Amino acid sequence: MTAPAGPADGSAVVSALREALGDAVVTTSARLEAVRADKSGHRSASRPLAIVDARSVEDVQATMRIATSTRTPVVTRGAGTGLAGAAMAGAGEIVLSTLMMDRVLEIDEDDLLAVVQPGILNGVFNDLLADRGLWFAPDPASRAISTVGGNIATGAGGLLCAKYGVTRDAVLGLTVVLADGRVIRTGHRSVKGVTGLDLTALMVGSEGLLGVVVEAIVRIRRRVAGTVATVACFFPDAASAARASSAITAAGVQPAVMELMDAASLRAVDALLGTSMGGAGAAHLVVQTDGPAAGEEAAAALDIVRSLGGTAELTTDLTEGERLLAVRRAMHPAMERLGTALIEDVSVPRSALPAMFAAIAEIEERFGITIPTVAHAGDGNLHPNFVVEGDSVPPHIWDAADALFTAALTLGGTLTGEHGIGVLKRRWLADELGDDQVELQRGVKAVFDPLGILNPGKVFDPLVVA
Amino acid sequence: MTAPAGPADGSAVVSALREALGDAVVTTSARLEAVRADKSGHRSASRPLAIVDARSVEDVQATMRIATSTRTPVVTRGAGTGLAGAAMAGAGEIVLSTLMMDRVLEIDEDDLLAVVQPGILNGVFNDLLADRGLWFAPDPASRAISTVGGNIATGAGGLLCAKYGVTRDAVLGLTVVLADGRVIRTGHRSVKGVTGLDLTALMVGSEGLLGVVVEAIVRIRRRVAGTVATVACFFPDAASAARASSAITAAGVQPAVMELMDAASLRAVDALLGTSMGGAGAAHLVVQTDGPAAGEEAAAALDIVRSLGGTAELTTDLTEGERLLAVRRAMHPAMERLGTALIEDVSVPRSALPAMFAAIAEIEERFGITIPTVAHAGDGNLHPNFVVEGDSVPPHIWDAADALFTAALTLGGTLTGEHGIGVLKRRWLADELGDDQVELQRGVKAVFDPLGILNPGKVFDPLVVA
Repeated sequence: MTAPAGPADGSAVVSALREALGDAVVTTSARLEAVRADKSGHRSASRPLAIVDARSVEDVQATMRIATSTRTPVVTRGAGTGLAGAAMAGAGEIVLSTLMMDRVLEIDEDDLLAVVQPGILNGVFNDLLADRGLWFAPDPASRAISTVGGNIATGAGGLLCAKYGVTRDAVLGLTVVLADGRVIRTGHRSVKGVTGLDLTALMVGSEGLLGVVVEAIVRIRRRVAGTVATVACFFPDAASAARASSAITAAGVQPAVMELMDAASLRAVDALLGTSMGGAGAAHLVVQTDGPAAGEEAAAALDIVRSLGGTAELTTDLTEGERLLAVRRAMHPAMERLGTALIEDVSVPRSALPAMFAAIAEIEERFGITIPTVAHAGDGNLHPNFVVEGDSVPPHIWDAADALFTAALTLGGTLTGEHGIGVLKRRWLADELGDDQVELQRGVKAVFDPLGILNPGKVFDPLVVA
Repeated sequence: MTAPAGPADGSAVVSALREALGDAVVTTSARLEAVRADKSGHRSASRPLAIVDARSVEDVQATMRIATSTRTPVVTRGAGTGLAGAAMAGAGEIVLSTLMMDRVLEIDEDDLLAVVQPGILNGVFNDLLADRGLWFAPDPASRAISTVGGNIATGAGGLLCAKYGVTRDAVLGLTVVLADGRVIRTGHRSVKGVTGLDLTALMVGSEGLLGVVVEAIVRIRRRVAGTVATVACFFPDAASAARASSAITAAGVQPAVMELMDAASLRAVDALLGTSMGGAGAAHLVVQTDGPAAGEEAAAALDIVRSLGGTAELTTDLTEGERLLAVRRAMHPAMERLGTALIEDVSVPRSALPAMFAAIAEIEERFGITIPTVAHAGDGNLHPNFVVEGDSVPPHIWDAADALFTAALTLGGTLTGEHGIGVLKRRWLADELGDDQVELQRGVKAVFDPLGILNPGKVFDPLVVA
């Protein structure tokens, strides 16, 4: 195929896609409308050209060959549960959906690895593994509706990272379709491997900028033996809950899960679930321990909580433990009821958690707003929520977000622990990375995508989204 | 500084270095001779121009600015313990030694991280940490003489990777001096962080091709509580020891250490230590378990070993455990006594360990040679040793190595688990990665190093070293 000098017109692109891919090409209104948005609450200004429901590696290759020859931008998309706008698609773009590539190709119990297609849902994958006494550690709160491919694209984290690692640690190898339709295989099935540059790790969290992941070799684990103990605590305020969580990790306890919710979050969840946890000034901390030392660790956490002024209950009943955690998992739906939630995602060193909560309280006061905040306290990742009415974010909210990011960076942290940059955090990218590193990263992107057709305008574009 | 059109002459480069860096610039015969080689047993054809003993980030920057302006190649070097020739330096090159940048800048017990300079020795670092009940998991067999910077440059692994992760998992952030002397900071001090492309992970294992690591934020751990149990076993042959090690991991036991030595290795160690382990056909397996379930896991391993025809002893005495492991740690010096050892480093999925040992036996027979082999059996990483006389490797040994690599790749493994490509494995790089991926990797290298001055001829150069 000879590439024309500039972008082809949209209808010619759709015709070429239809000729190559038949009814995998979808242009119905409802579908095109849906892919303008992700779960960030934002949406692009207009509809994309078409959606390709890829069913095979060959479908992805055919799509990319046409995109390259016609210079048409491609937005790769899984379940669309992203929170940074990276999978939002707009005018002139092809959406390459990998949601129908959802098979588990292999589960190897001896080598503790699985080979999966990107469209498999995290929850479905884990259900399959559970039947064999196995599990996949990356555990985004959205696991019931989000894909493993999305995990890899964003480097999504979740509740278990402090003890069980981040997504990068769980990916051993990838099959990737490049911008021009060629296929590469990175990584290996062995525990170790250092041949050449680590493109597997580079792909994790690359937000659709470098290629299309069509298959992944992921590390799986055996179910952890022993008790699961859950300690649920209330504190007078978020700052004291944060101090307790820092004290728990500093004491050498390694919780599998440690989740913190502030009073405004509890009130929102109360409104959704009909519960009544959000008394004035209350904050909630759930600590879950597992493994051979679960009981001892939970007892140690309980002592620390009580010594720091918290009230706590301990259970080793699994169902009761899940019920206590369900409060935390209800946070996102609870926020959605309040309006459009801009869910932030700063991450700081664990010991800085109390300082970060203090900074949030200061920002609330300065801007006259409430910022309901939950935190994966075990790893220092906070989700402060800005709730707004309607689709557009008012300037003072962006200013408050700016103050939030500055505080996180000052504390040695990052803009985004697990959601990614997408379009929503583009303008702060250089604040964290510095101009020289941004220039290098753009250079790496250009090596993979010389025509700039892979998710253009995401991550690096400095334009502000309205 | 204006860059000239081509490389400057060597004496002008050395003069410029002396002017900027004074007595940090070394050109004594002994030092220049030493940096022609690493621990691979190979050496470059001639001496480099000079060595810069950098004492600060500024020294590294000054060196790189001069290298850029004069188009002079730079070989970054730590302790020179590499086994793939990546730190060997030759004609016209500057050696940038980071060995004197050896300070621990910070140990943060609450956040379980340390900030170190690259020249700190792994052993020295771990001794400092041990005083506080902490440790750094990457544990190359060379830990007493190798640096943390070298670990990072090669992605070195060691004995503990199956349970405690590879070097990539232990590096949170890096300060890197670029080819032109600019400085970037990648990563963060938080557990999570996904801002932009993961250049921290890309740097790990990049063998001096992309920049000079001058500071690292590394993850440290609390000392594992509980017993350490060591099971030392003998088997009639390596294949049955390999079957036992696969059975142990398949049974859900997670050893901290599991090391396998074949009969030829035992004989070599016997010759060094004056012991007498290497009876005809014997093979040795050491399994070490730690943590709360150490005792149970060791007992389970013992049962498996005995059921598969091994004889075994179990100790929970730490000193006795270290003595049993010392046999394994004596392997490299034992090989050095026999001649020039080409230490290979293939890695395969753990379940393929018996098949890989069978392949090695077949290669020994086909080429009429003995290949003493040890393996980090817990993670499937084997070190087959080709022992030759003199400095040059005869063609039939390269052919045997070629057969070895082909076998590892066929089993889903890799050319190199932890030593890197350097110069010794360049000609097989494309066999593993494929031409398209090699092209991409070269492109990424060029983004970081547009003039090609960072460790040129390593990893990507297809020329065969004599």
